[in-house]
Amino acid sequence: MNATITDFVGRPAVAPVSRVEAFIRANEFDRPTLVLDTKAVANQYHALKAGLGRAHIHYAVKANPAREIVEELVNLGSHFDAASRGEIELCLSLGAAPETISFGNTIKRASDIAFAYHAGITLFAADAEEELEKIAEHAPGAEVYIRLIVDASEADWPLSRKFGCARDKALDLLAMATRLGLKPVGFSFHVGSQTRRAEMWTTTLDQIAEIWHRAHAQGHQLTLLNIGGGFPAFYGEAIDHPTKYSARVMALVTERFGDVERVMAEPGRGLVAEAGMIAAEVLLVSRKSNDDAHRWVYLDIGKFSGLAETMDEAIRYQFITDRDAEPTGPCILAGPSCDSADVLYEKRPVQLPVGLKAGDRFIIRNCGAYTSSYSSVGFNGFPPLDVIVI
Amino acid sequence: MNATITDFVGRPAVAPVSRVEAFIRANEFDRPTLVLDTKAVANQYHALKAGLGRAHIHYAVKANPAREIVEELVNLGSHFDAASRGEIELCLSLGAAPETISFGNTIKRASDIAFAYHAGITLFAADAEEELEKIAEHAPGAEVYIRLIVDASEADWPLSRKFGCARDKALDLLAMATRLGLKPVGFSFHVGSQTRRAEMWTTTLDQIAEIWHRAHAQGHQLTLLNIGGGFPAFYGEAIDHPTKYSARVMALVTERFGDVERVMAEPGRGLVAEAGMIAAEVLLVSRKSNDDAHRWVYLDIGKFSGLAETMDEAIRYQFITDRDAEPTGPCILAGPSCDSADVLYEKRPVQLPVGLKAGDRFIIRNCGAYTSSYSSVGFNGFPPLDVIVI
Repeated sequence: MNATITDFVGRPAVAPVSRVEAFIRANEFDRPTLVLDTKAVANQYHALKAGLGRAHIHYAVKANPAREIVEELVNLGSHFDAASRGEIELCLSLGAAPETISFGNTIKRASDIAFAYHAGITLFAADAEEELEKIAEHAPGAEVYIRLIVDASEADWPLSRKFGCARDKALDLLAMATRLGLKPVGFSFHVGSQTRRAEMWTTTLDQIAEIWHRAHAQGHQLTLLNIGGGFPAFYGEAIDHPTKYSARVMALVTERFGDVERVMAEPGRGLVAEAGMIAAEVLLVSRKSNDDAHRWVYLDIGKFSGLAETMDEAIRYQFITDRDAEPTGPCILAGPSCDSADVLYEKRPVQLPVGLKAGDRFIIRNCGAYTSSYSSVGFNGFPPLDVIVI
Repeated sequence: MNATITDFVGRPAVAPVSRVEAFIRANEFDRPTLVLDTKAVANQYHALKAGLGRAHIHYAVKANPAREIVEELVNLGSHFDAASRGEIELCLSLGAAPETISFGNTIKRASDIAFAYHAGITLFAADAEEELEKIAEHAPGAEVYIRLIVDASEADWPLSRKFGCARDKALDLLAMATRLGLKPVGFSFHVGSQTRRAEMWTTTLDQIAEIWHRAHAQGHQLTLLNIGGGFPAFYGEAIDHPTKYSARVMALVTERFGDVERVMAEPGRGLVAEAGMIAAEVLLVSRKSNDDAHRWVYLDIGKFSGLAETMDEAIRYQFITDRDAEPTGPCILAGPSCDSADVLYEKRPVQLPVGLKAGDRFIIRNCGAYTSSYSSVGFNGFPPLDVIVI
């Protein structure tokens, strides 16, 4: 297991070097490279599953669609949450059974619904009338769950209102689905990305439980509760152990929903983030003026080549350099592109060794999630983030 | 010429349909597709060149690296501003002479400097000591220009402090370049992306002229002034005609700098934005609750598949639908991915036809710049933005 994921109290790692870090230190890379350890993914799957119990894990493929990760999870018995036809094809091509794949994007092209239906997918998400109409036409008789908006989130990165519908409207959609010949089986929601403590789920679960019981009272025999993602990764702030965390979430679910027939959980970040590190390089260290209090440190990777989640400085990665024993000073961290928006951390500068210079190796920890797939095809002529699976 | 670029007073287009729009209307697309017209690029090149006169146009390849565009510009005698080894290789492979290519990124990998030097590139940008050291080591004797920070910008999208150095420091860097055996030939700056009126250059040019003359007074025989980009495209707000605009900028330059031996201009957006439109599709129209004042309109393209410049709602694209004769209402516009940050316009909603629905064609105007290259490799399993050149 990746050493860092045992570091639950948020101390700087004094843990043994992980397989990924050892691999990076033993090799040279001519461009930024994400190194992934499928064993670390497997360990994390087991740790989450031990807490989730009877809930099915539907891995959110968008977090990292590396074939080796999906294949490993197929072998472990994981189910999958797919955002697109492309992700469904990926899962099927690696041996996932169609009945283990849910089409969880509430915004689907009609022809992709038809594709999924003919491929054997039977479970779809929706949050609007028009989406139900498309599903009824192109996947007649399918099971649907209605995605709900969550009002209050205690996540590090609360979601926008983009997905889901208001709770009152959800009851109308259940009725409409039935009229259209679909099978409305339940609700889904998302507690917010990187919800660091299990107790932070309480308010959201209270909201969802209220409408769940109201739906039952109206005669909807709901059998499926999809609790979505939000399972955290370690980025420097303390998080619970994955088993303890997911067991507590399930206890909170059971307190409110009783013995629901099917519970789905959709970890993405929480499954794969800690299984990968990026091998990067310092390209330039400078000061803008002779009395500049901050250094600027420019890496060979930036916002458009894998580190998109530094947007608004939301996710704060941790770093390893060969000079970590040196004193540190405040730095603004930026990417290599000719784009002034390609600055990673400026509002809250990062502390980096005073001797850091061009050519230094720069390892970015716990970035197995939402990096390789966000990478641009070639912004500024830089190749996409390379991926190596060990 | 693309009809929209004659629309300089900012009215909704009543102009004749452009070749790009006609092509999109005559074809079906199974995924979002950027359609580019190299004739429109050529026309814009001529229009800018007519105003820029003796200044060399160095096309900022990062704006759109389509091979057909670069090839067209090589044939027209354009020079090039390259951000990376990849862009240099692209230009060389399409027949650009090495002496017409400047390596304008101030953040360069040492091995890429060596590559460029051996390929015959002789002109490099720098804004820091360490960068000069790398250039001196890997491109001995090369010409360098020093990039300056601009304090005040009147651009729609002012740049951050990521590039350039303070003006006092620039003088030190000129001296250091000489000590290192390099040829410090001049300065560069960037007035800010999408500087809509030529008069908005005045303050910046005043700042640069002050340090330019100070450098001369200190004995630096500067011969090169790189005025960078900032040339605007039409996104709905009035802009000057490109010839009038660039002639006025050159007049402002001459007033302040006299008869500089070499002037470089680096239009990117201003050369190619209006030469392209994206053929997209509406995937879903919904309301979050029954009394929601706004509709949500979801497209098959979003922030991670080409429309990255909607970040902070900075660039506001214009749209064409088949229902533009209908009354309109306020909409929040979002992309198709399962990412809550993939919302294009929410703070300032867009007006769209009331009858808009899933399956409708949705054309995005003037998006030939900074779309295809920003596109992710496959976020959420969606393929990168397709490109067709007509």
